[in-house]
Amino acid sequence: MPRVISHEQLCAFTERLFEAAGANSEEAVVIANNLVTSSLFGHDSHGAMRIPEYLGFIEDGSIVPGAKIQIEKKSATTAIVDCGQGFGPVGATKAMETAIEMAREQKTASVITRRCNHVARLGAFVQLAADEGMIGIATCNSPMYGDWVVPFGGSEGRLSTNPIAYGVPTEGDPIIADVSTSMAPEGKIRTYMNQGKMVPDGWVQKSDGTPTNNPAEFYGPPKGGILPLGGSAGHKGYALSMLVEILGAAYAGLSSTATDLFGNGVCFLVLDPATFCPLETFKQMTQGMVTYLKSSPPAPGFKEVLVPGELEFRTRRQREVDGISVDDPTWDRMCDFAKQWNVEIP
Amino acid sequence: MPRVISHEQLCAFTERLFEAAGANSEEAVVIANNLVTSSLFGHDSHGAMRIPEYLGFIEDGSIVPGAKIQIEKKSATTAIVDCGQGFGPVGATKAMETAIEMAREQKTASVITRRCNHVARLGAFVQLAADEGMIGIATCNSPMYGDWVVPFGGSEGRLSTNPIAYGVPTEGDPIIADVSTSMAPEGKIRTYMNQGKMVPDGWVQKSDGTPTNNPAEFYGPPKGGILPLGGSAGHKGYALSMLVEILGAAYAGLSSTATDLFGNGVCFLVLDPATFCPLETFKQMTQGMVTYLKSSPPAPGFKEVLVPGELEFRTRRQREVDGISVDDPTWDRMCDFAKQWNVEIP
Repeated sequence: MPRVISHEQLCAFTERLFEAAGANSEEAVVIANNLVTSSLFGHDSHGAMRIPEYLGFIEDGSIVPGAKIQIEKKSATTAIVDCGQGFGPVGATKAMETAIEMAREQKTASVITRRCNHVARLGAFVQLAADEGMIGIATCNSPMYGDWVVPFGGSEGRLSTNPIAYGVPTEGDPIIADVSTSMAPEGKIRTYMNQGKMVPDGWVQKSDGTPTNNPAEFYGPPKGGILPLGGSAGHKGYALSMLVEILGAAYAGLSSTATDLFGNGVCFLVLDPATFCPLETFKQMTQGMVTYLKSSPPAPGFKEVLVPGELEFRTRRQREVDGISVDDPTWDRMCDFAKQWNVEIP
Repeated sequence: MPRVISHEQLCAFTERLFEAAGANSEEAVVIANNLVTSSLFGHDSHGAMRIPEYLGFIEDGSIVPGAKIQIEKKSATTAIVDCGQGFGPVGATKAMETAIEMAREQKTASVITRRCNHVARLGAFVQLAADEGMIGIATCNSPMYGDWVVPFGGSEGRLSTNPIAYGVPTEGDPIIADVSTSMAPEGKIRTYMNQGKMVPDGWVQKSDGTPTNNPAEFYGPPKGGILPLGGSAGHKGYALSMLVEILGAAYAGLSSTATDLFGNGVCFLVLDPATFCPLETFKQMTQGMVTYLKSSPPAPGFKEVLVPGELEFRTRRQREVDGISVDDPTWDRMCDFAKQWNVEIP
């Protein structure tokens, strides 16, 4: 039976675990807040289940706790944030904070990362921008080993699932979108396989480029591919995926075929909407847009039209009351770490 | 039988027509070059067939030739280009030139338009950036009357086809992507209807939100909707479409439900890749990415993997030799205008 725990307790426990594992207190706060917030938002795949995974990464040396983050400003609007292979979300938070600060001064900013580990949920960082009254746009690629996605018309993977996220303030909850440019993320296909289920049409193909619904034929060997977003219009998802790849690799001066890179290549673009109209006007306009979109009567099979992030904020409010359900394997591994380091278990 | 004419002759004829219609010589050069280049690239829907259409817009007053374009710099990285309801491509070219100039100085720039008429092919402007060694990103929305696209799960249109374009330099031809965030542009559906053909699955739905392949059921009345990019993952295309809407409306301080707007709301983001690595390195990296993508063996039904813009540059080289084929109705209308204004017909 999964353990249900309040987000405050889970956050405090997680902080203690990361500190025990060698993180400094600032890192522990950021990482606990990041992962627990993902669980609050209902993104369990990027939430509590990553806690023992990240703790394991510290043990095996792939995450360097206390890594020095170096911010190299290249101009008044651009910076490279070298994350030193520390915690991905800690480095990405610093990169987004840098971008927000620069955009506040200069109205536009672009910040990239280097040596950044897995950043978890990209939407977390664009929300930082939205919370500061900014438009935050984020892209995130992965090095060659994550190339599951085929180029349109191709049979071998050449791109990662390459998400695009953005956060925009309104008069209510911000709009938080976080979407991969492929038909599905790899993790979702693995879930189908583990459950012995077929995946929907148009998600994956076999290694010879023919379609399949069988996730086992996708995983192979030989390895198949995930299709770019769009189905018959998959050239569009492919084009957007390439933009993410360009901003994560070439823009940072890195090769798309380098085999010595790991983690994520992140690019944050921040725009200050107060450059063209007062922030309050901007928020009125985005709020009006949300109202207009939601006024579209639902199609059969849908209860209502949602905007990106809306469901997540609802789930958060619910889970802030009901607590977060942590699955047994995750909780057990957390408790194992706690016993190993004499950390109090809530 | 369609008229086949060299692009130089077509360009010169088009310039003379626009000058005769009241455009100044600078406008005539930009507009002729823009439309003829679209035809060269194979985008006939944004090419020669728009020549008589635009000439008609001058006659009916919806395009104001000689409109004063006002550039209001809001900061070192941001500007509003008020196009005064002149030629869309002329205003958009000025906006992109402004963004390139600012990005060269400041490394990032964001420029929006106001009172901008239909800009034709968005890819034309991002190519200006790529030709200058910049990353150019463009989004373009339309006011409420163009809201053919339903929000994900909705039955009434609330968004335009909202394209995203980008241009990026390589060691060869630039990468030029220009994709709508819907399954199909409206014009393509009209073509199917005019030919009495059914549209592919997943493109459109009836006014009650149920799927259809019959374009007549989409057009109604009652009017149906175009689906956002992505099919079963249509929430992703919807999210990207909303970003285009936000950058075209709220960011410019404009309402998504204003009924007194027409033309396009354009946002140009320009990034100077030379901020993070030398331009030559960037081009090597994008070229390497292109080579890597194209090395994916083609899936059944495909001859090769292409990158965005590749087919267009091939078509251009072919049509520069073979000439441009102008359909009869377009040519006849051009000749009618020519006779009316005593313009020499080539």
